[in-house]
Amino acid sequence: MRNANLQIVLKSRPDGLAGPENFEETTAPIRAPEEGEVLVESIYLSIDPAMRVWMDENPGYVPSIGIGEVMRAGGIGRVVESRIAGIKEGDYVQARLGWQSHPTLSSQGTHKLDLSLGSVEDWIGPLGTTGLTAWFGIRAVGALSGADSVLVSGAAGAVGQMAAQFAKLEGCLVVGIAGGPEKCAYLTGELGLDDAIDYRAVDDISVAVSAAMPEGVDLYFDNVGGPTLDAALENLRPLGRVALCGRISQTAAAERYGIKNTGLLIGKRGRMQGFIVSDYNDRYDEARQWISGKLKTGELKQRLHVLDGLASAPEGLSMLFRSQNTGKLVVKV
Amino acid sequence: MRNANLQIVLKSRPDGLAGPENFEETTAPIRAPEEGEVLVESIYLSIDPAMRVWMDENPGYVPSIGIGEVMRAGGIGRVVESRIAGIKEGDYVQARLGWQSHPTLSSQGTHKLDLSLGSVEDWIGPLGTTGLTAWFGIRAVGALSGADSVLVSGAAGAVGQMAAQFAKLEGCLVVGIAGGPEKCAYLTGELGLDDAIDYRAVDDISVAVSAAMPEGVDLYFDNVGGPTLDAALENLRPLGRVALCGRISQTAAAERYGIKNTGLLIGKRGRMQGFIVSDYNDRYDEARQWISGKLKTGELKQRLHVLDGLASAPEGLSMLFRSQNTGKLVVKV
Repeated sequence: MRNANLQIVLKSRPDGLAGPENFEETTAPIRAPEEGEVLVESIYLSIDPAMRVWMDENPGYVPSIGIGEVMRAGGIGRVVESRIAGIKEGDYVQARLGWQSHPTLSSQGTHKLDLSLGSVEDWIGPLGTTGLTAWFGIRAVGALSGADSVLVSGAAGAVGQMAAQFAKLEGCLVVGIAGGPEKCAYLTGELGLDDAIDYRAVDDISVAVSAAMPEGVDLYFDNVGGPTLDAALENLRPLGRVALCGRISQTAAAERYGIKNTGLLIGKRGRMQGFIVSDYNDRYDEARQWISGKLKTGELKQRLHVLDGLASAPEGLSMLFRSQNTGKLVVKV
Repeated sequence: MRNANLQIVLKSRPDGLAGPENFEETTAPIRAPEEGEVLVESIYLSIDPAMRVWMDENPGYVPSIGIGEVMRAGGIGRVVESRIAGIKEGDYVQARLGWQSHPTLSSQGTHKLDLSLGSVEDWIGPLGTTGLTAWFGIRAVGALSGADSVLVSGAAGAVGQMAAQFAKLEGCLVVGIAGGPEKCAYLTGELGLDDAIDYRAVDDISVAVSAAMPEGVDLYFDNVGGPTLDAALENLRPLGRVALCGRISQTAAAERYGIKNTGLLIGKRGRMQGFIVSDYNDRYDEARQWISGKLKTGELKQRLHVLDGLASAPEGLSMLFRSQNTGKLVVKV
C-alpha cells in the first residue's frame, strides 16, 4: 500500500450528461482511523444513476456534492485498520466509500458484510442497495403478485435485472425493455424473461408493449421515465401499479418530457408511486435472507459489468447514461 | 302528468366540448312498470364531468352512449308507480335516470333515499355520488390526516367543495383552486378555507401554490389535471399523495398536456392514484352516516347551482366545462 489515498473529486457541475471533464484526480495522505473509525482499501465502487443527481446544485432529497469534494459513491472495501468494535482487519464492509482508494470511514453507514449470505460480488449487487431497491420497489411499492403481468424498463441494468428476476421467480409473465439486441438476448436467454423489447429498434414503444403484452400491464417497474412511462400507462390494466424507481432518460434531458397518460390512471384506478430504498432499511435483513437463498440455488443471477481501476470511474458514469452497460456497472479499484 | 316521457337523446359525438348541438329532444310513451320495475318522475338530474367522457366512442371504463340513445345521467326521482318490493309511490329514489322526465327503471341501481339522513337536495350532493366521491377520494385514496396541508382543485365545484370541507373538518390547512373572484370568495368565506387561488388571475399556478402553501402540499385532490397537477407535484411534500378524481381541463383539450413533474415523485416518495367511487360501494353507509351528522350540525355545506327544466341540460353540460357553475350543477326537471 502506497501512503497515498488516490481520489477523484468533482471539478465542475455537468450541464447534461456527466463525464471525465467534470472530475479530476488528486491524492491525499492516508489518514489513520480514530476511535470509531476504520481505514479500508476500496475494492468495488458502484456506478449508479443517482450519482448524476447528487452532482446537481439542488438534488432535493440528499445534499449536493461540493466542488472539490471527493465524488460520493457506495461500494465495498476491505478493512486495513479498525477502531470499530466488531470490525477487524481483513473484514469486508459496505459503505459510502466515495471515489477514493483508501477512505477512512466512521461507523455510521459502515456495515460489515455477512459472507455467509453471499460473495463480495453478490454484496455489490443482489445483496446490496441494487438488489434491495428492486426488492422493495417491486414488492412493497409495486405489491407484486404471482398473477401479475410485469413490465420492467432498464431491464438489463443493475436494478432492472433484479426486479425482472424477482417477478419471474414469483411466476409472473415478465417483459423487459432494454437498448440493443445483445441486452435483449441476455434478458430472454440468461434471465429467462418471457419477452424483451429493444426500444432502439421500435418506432412506437407503446405499440411494442401492447404487442408483447396484449392483455396489458399489471405492474410496471420504471427505471427510465419519459416516453416509456407514457407507454406503460397507456397499457396499464385496471388496478395497475407503477413503481417509480428512476428516470434515466430524463436525468440529463435538455427539456423534460411531459407524461400525457396520467389521466388514464383515473378510469383504471391505477397507482403510481415513487420510493427510496432507505425508507425500508428496517426490513433489509428479511429481503437479504430471501435473496441469499435464491443466489445459493442459482435461480437468481447477476451480470456485473466491471471497469478496471479507479481512474475509469468518470468514464463509467458517462457509459451508464449512454446505456452502454449490461448488468450492474462497477469499478474494481 | 302528460302521457309522454320527454327525452333528450345524443345526436352526435362532440369533438371538443359538448353542447346543445350534440343533442335533440324527443318524446316516447310513458311505459308502465313491469314486475321488478318502477316508474318515476325525474326531480333532479346531475350534471357531471364524467358525462362528457361517456359521449366518446371509447370511454374506457363504461360503455359508450349510442347515437339516438337517451343521454345517461344520474339523479333523483319520485316514484309514480312501483312494482319493486320496499319501494312505494311517493318515495324518492336515486338512480341512473337519464335525461328524461318519466323513466321506467329496473331495481338494479335504483336506491330508495333514506330521508332521515338528509333532504332530497342533500342526497343529490353530499349524500350522493358527489359526496361519496370526495369522501373516498380524500380518505381511502388520499389517506387524509389532520396534520395534512391539503390542496383541492375545482374546489368550488361539486366534488371539490365536499373534498375541501372534509379536509377542513379534519383540522387541515386547506387551500382551494377555482376560477374567478366570486368562487374564491365562496371558498374562503362560506366554506372557511384557509386560502383560495384564482387560477385565471395568476401567471404561474405553481408559484401561486408555493406562495399559499410555503411548506408544501401533503395531499392534492385533483379535479382538473393539466398544468395544475404539474404545479401540485412541484409543491408536493415528501410522502405526499395525489388523489386523481378528474381532469376537467383535459376532457376536451385538442392536445393532452404532458405532466413534467412525475419524476419528482421518486425523491419525494410520492404517490398518485386514480379511483372510481363505485370501488367503495360496500362502505357507502359508513360514509353517509358521517356526512349526515355534519350536515345536521350545519358544519358541512353545499351550494347547488340549479338549472330549470330538462331542456336546459345540454347547455348545463357546456357550462360545466366552461367552469360557469359554483357548486353542484343540477337540472330541476
